[in-house]
Amino acid sequence: MTDTAVLLLSCPDQTGVVATVADFVWRNGGNIIDAEQHTDHTDGVFFQRIEFTLAEFVFARDRLAAAFAPIAERFDMHVDVRYSADRPRLAILASRAPHCLVDLLARWSAGELPADLAVIVSNHPDHADLAGFYGIPFAHLPVESNDGAQELRVRAVLESERVERLVLARYMRILSPEFVDAYPGRIINIHHSFLPAFVGAEPYRQASERGVKVIGATAHYVTADLDEGPIIEQDVTRVSHRHSVEDLARAGRDLEVAVLARAVRADLEHRVLVWGNRTIVFH
Amino acid sequence: MTDTAVLLLSCPDQTGVVATVADFVWRNGGNIIDAEQHTDHTDGVFFQRIEFTLAEFVFARDRLAAAFAPIAERFDMHVDVRYSADRPRLAILASRAPHCLVDLLARWSAGELPADLAVIVSNHPDHADLAGFYGIPFAHLPVESNDGAQELRVRAVLESERVERLVLARYMRILSPEFVDAYPGRIINIHHSFLPAFVGAEPYRQASERGVKVIGATAHYVTADLDEGPIIEQDVTRVSHRHSVEDLARAGRDLEVAVLARAVRADLEHRVLVWGNRTIVFH
Amino acid sequence: MTDTAVLLLSCPDQTGVVATVADFVWRNGGNIIDAEQHTDHTDGVFFQRIEFTLAEFVFARDRLAAAFAPIAERFDMHVDVRYSADRPRLAILASRAPHCLVDLLARWSAGELPADLAVIVSNHPDHADLAGFYGIPFAHLPVESNDGAQELRVRAVLESERVERLVLARYMRILSPEFVDAYPGRIINIHHSFLPAFVGAEPYRQASERGVKVIGATAHYVTADLDEGPIIEQDVTRVSHRHSVEDLARAGRDLEVAVLARAVRADLEHRVLVWGNRTIVFH
Amino acid sequence: MTDTAVLLLSCPDQTGVVATVADFVWRNGGNIIDAEQHTDHTDGVFFQRIEFTLAEFVFARDRLAAAFAPIAERFDMHVDVRYSADRPRLAILASRAPHCLVDLLARWSAGELPADLAVIVSNHPDHADLAGFYGIPFAHLPVESNDGAQELRVRAVLESERVERLVLARYMRILSPEFVDAYPGRIINIHHSFLPAFVGAEPYRQASERGVKVIGATAHYVTADLDEGPIIEQDVTRVSHRHSVEDLARAGRDLEVAVLARAVRADLEHRVLVWGNRTIVFH
Repeated sequence: MTDTAVLLLSCPDQTGVVATVADFVWRNGGNIIDAEQHTDHTDGVFFQRIEFTLAEFVFARDRLAAAFAPIAERFDMHVDVRYSADRPRLAILASRAPHCLVDLLARWSAGELPADLAVIVSNHPDHADLAGFYGIPFAHLPVESNDGAQELRVRAVLESERVERLVLARYMRILSPEFVDAYPGRIINIHHSFLPAFVGAEPYRQASERGVKVIGATAHYVTADLDEGPIIEQDVTRVSHRHSVEDLARAGRDLEVAVLARAVRADLEHRVLVWGNRTIVFH
Repeated sequence: MTDTAVLLLSCPDQTGVVATVADFVWRNGGNIIDAEQHTDHTDGVFFQRIEFTLAEFVFARDRLAAAFAPIAERFDMHVDVRYSADRPRLAILASRAPHCLVDLLARWSAGELPADLAVIVSNHPDHADLAGFYGIPFAHLPVESNDGAQELRVRAVLESERVERLVLARYMRILSPEFVDAYPGRIINIHHSFLPAFVGAEPYRQASERGVKVIGATAHYVTADLDEGPIIEQDVTRVSHRHSVEDLARAGRDLEVAVLARAVRADLEHRVLVWGNRTIVFH
Repeated sequence: MTDTAVLLLSCPDQTGVVATVADFVWRNGGNIIDAEQHTDHTDGVFFQRIEFTLAEFVFARDRLAAAFAPIAERFDMHVDVRYSADRPRLAILASRAPHCLVDLLARWSAGELPADLAVIVSNHPDHADLAGFYGIPFAHLPVESNDGAQELRVRAVLESERVERLVLARYMRILSPEFVDAYPGRIINIHHSFLPAFVGAEPYRQASERGVKVIGATAHYVTADLDEGPIIEQDVTRVSHRHSVEDLARAGRDLEVAVLARAVRADLEHRVLVWGNRTIVFH
Repeated sequence: MTDTAVLLLSCPDQTGVVATVADFVWRNGGNIIDAEQHTDHTDGVFFQRIEFTLAEFVFARDRLAAAFAPIAERFDMHVDVRYSADRPRLAILASRAPHCLVDLLARWSAGELPADLAVIVSNHPDHADLAGFYGIPFAHLPVESNDGAQELRVRAVLESERVERLVLARYMRILSPEFVDAYPGRIINIHHSFLPAFVGAEPYRQASERGVKVIGATAHYVTADLDEGPIIEQDVTRVSHRHSVEDLARAGRDLEVAVLARAVRADLEHRVLVWGNRTIVFH
């Protein structure tokens, strides 16, 4: 894999942005290997993801931001620079259900997820052996009281492991606003319904009672509002009257696995831009 | 097509039902060409659809109910008898949007919908020519006041045309409880969202604002509770940030057409059993 | 709708293309409203679709090609210029089956297809009334011999109507190489299978005999090799043992309608680039 | 789980079968909890799956066949009796690719697959640790010559482990007819394409070269004809020009995992009937 940089840009919609940015990259030795743009005409906002090779690029990391600053200023642009060589330190938080964790570990092991897996944290001991099989540190942090002590221990582990991004792989604890604020836009959760249908607990029971013919799963960034963060990926599967609540849950597990994996991969590949409560996911 | 009868049965789950019903049909000269059953273990209810040929069947229509009564009584069974030779008189109610109406007419014309199309009713005049093209009476009943006078005129037309079943093909008027009660379980509506997400008005705008990655459509029987009736069919399609509200609406139209057509066909082929607020749709 | 121009570009993969093209458009007063690119790393080819507004663009139509020529030459670029204001004259060719024709007419009537519908041609008389309903000329050109006389009459009609693009909406005649050559890359066909599975006749019968669990439809540009042209769009639907050949055909019709409509729309919106026997379909 | 028996029946289509079989079960104390039937009108064959509880059933296993024999004879019926309490001894054969194996093990461990996992066999050593993690015997049987010696060693292991059913989880060796004959209808393979498209080697490369917009995977019973056995399950996913051969392979892996798991589960739950080269998969 060639080393590349990715610029994730957003600014008020105006002429000249595409040409100016492309010119900046090219003039400074970058070869653009992918560029995608989107204009939200309702809000009048322009978004771009532009990826270019670094082999001949003249600016070192610590100088790129300064070099690009005049363009950013001129277009009133928000700029996020990522490097393919950076592998973020990732934590997976899980409870008892193994399916999402098993899948993420298998994909990580197969090289599908460009991240360093720093630690697996759980309020249950069940997955210690699995973590060990893949050689990942495992922190069993049981909930022993309702005073938030467990969450503080989780945060301490994440900090000591220098974790940068988190995946909640069916982690059944609600995070405090303070926790969420510590990782803004850096926590991905999988909700086991097609949001905004069936928010809250036991969505498969709700789906069964409403008699829906399709069930879904939703991966989203975690914000302080439960089940309300920006949606990264969703998918659905057909069901029928034959599906009991247990059958819905089993069919749903396959969905959860697939949807969470796609969301985590998009995030790690720097393909997601957040705008308000929505995402632009480039391909 | 061979003439057949369809029994739609429901009763408390118990032993002997399948054997007893099959024996009744067979002993009396019916050849079972399709039988499907379902047991709802949560509620303890047994459902069956059994279709058999009438060529050698000994009971005429007016005697079947009486002949089957001892079995129905013994198993505390709800029985609905349908005949393939009966083509219900169907009305389609539409407003301005043509897509569902155009599709239903094309399918009806191609022989896909076993019904007699009695009348097309609309609060707008737009579809008069289309109705004329297919040779269907068209009643333009505009809304001129808020006193329910238009609905009364609609009901008068339906009664004079001896309409038995109704399809709301993007009909933008809310029906009164009295109207709904006059056609219990016999009105099918298409809602342009994946219910229960985005109930109410402008679901595509709601979907755009929530940034969902999938949109849906739902066909359901109409009950007094808006958007809450038993769901017959649902389907979804993937969307992205590229979809404006108008794009969502256009993609949604194709869904609405497909979902409504499948629901109407299932209903007319006597494949739908309603249980509480849910449906069993046999195939 | 703002008037726009679309450049469809392909050239050997090299640095500077994106910046140079964007700069050309911007420097000359065009506002880029959409740009998508793709690099085929296997063949080393770069593709781009770039759409920009014409309101302030300095070059009139007859001067754009000349103005862009130095860039095209420098990058060894193939350039195709389209204008949103140009509505191509379109012919639909159909045989007996109405479903694709009915759907295309309804979409055209709803403004979904940016083309002028010049004529409907058929080897059967069945659709004359339908064409009349939409006010489109209808040419009934029956096949009376095997000497190609009918095809010559079809071509004469297309020429006299100045037809630029053709849609074969389940037209059951094989076109001669001469016919195909007269409209290179401008004829879209719908094949009723998931190509390359089930090439040739009666794909639904073939699918039934092979016992597949999924059936498909494929829209492709027509080339001299039957069923082998570049695929524009495909889709599939699940089936089961319950589907007879007739059921497969009915389920397939809905697919054919949807796939053909999406392909025609992509083509008319200048979103399709052909490369060898493959397509790049931008969104 | 209640202990149940499943009858998988096929016979020439005729009247009285449903009633007679239901009566036999009921009269002898079985409570029918699921019954599905299908008639292939082309071939004139009737199929049924009937599942009933054993708690009050009067016939022990060794007497059921004899008791049912008069009915089987009268209707010229092929009968296959299965018991939910029987967990077949299953072997998984894999090569280097881990994805299907990892998924099957996780599902088996979660209780989704009603079988005893007897052994994992591979021509490579890679998965020894994984097998060990789940406590399954692992046989590494490398291919050291072209004389079929390896296959003989595989068969010896399967026999010594008393294996009854096999899953080829991307096992890259072609089995000899003798091997296949030893497990008739008891070997399930996953082929990484939508059969019958792209038979043979490197289907993702073939798909890329043909420029398809959808790729698939197919699970089928293995017969002596490569890639030609009865299809149990298929599924597809959309792709685009953006997918390189490697991307197609990665997207395809997720499909392979899902399709193989569904096929193995249907087989183990006694829901598959084979008729000629097709399957009836009851739900």
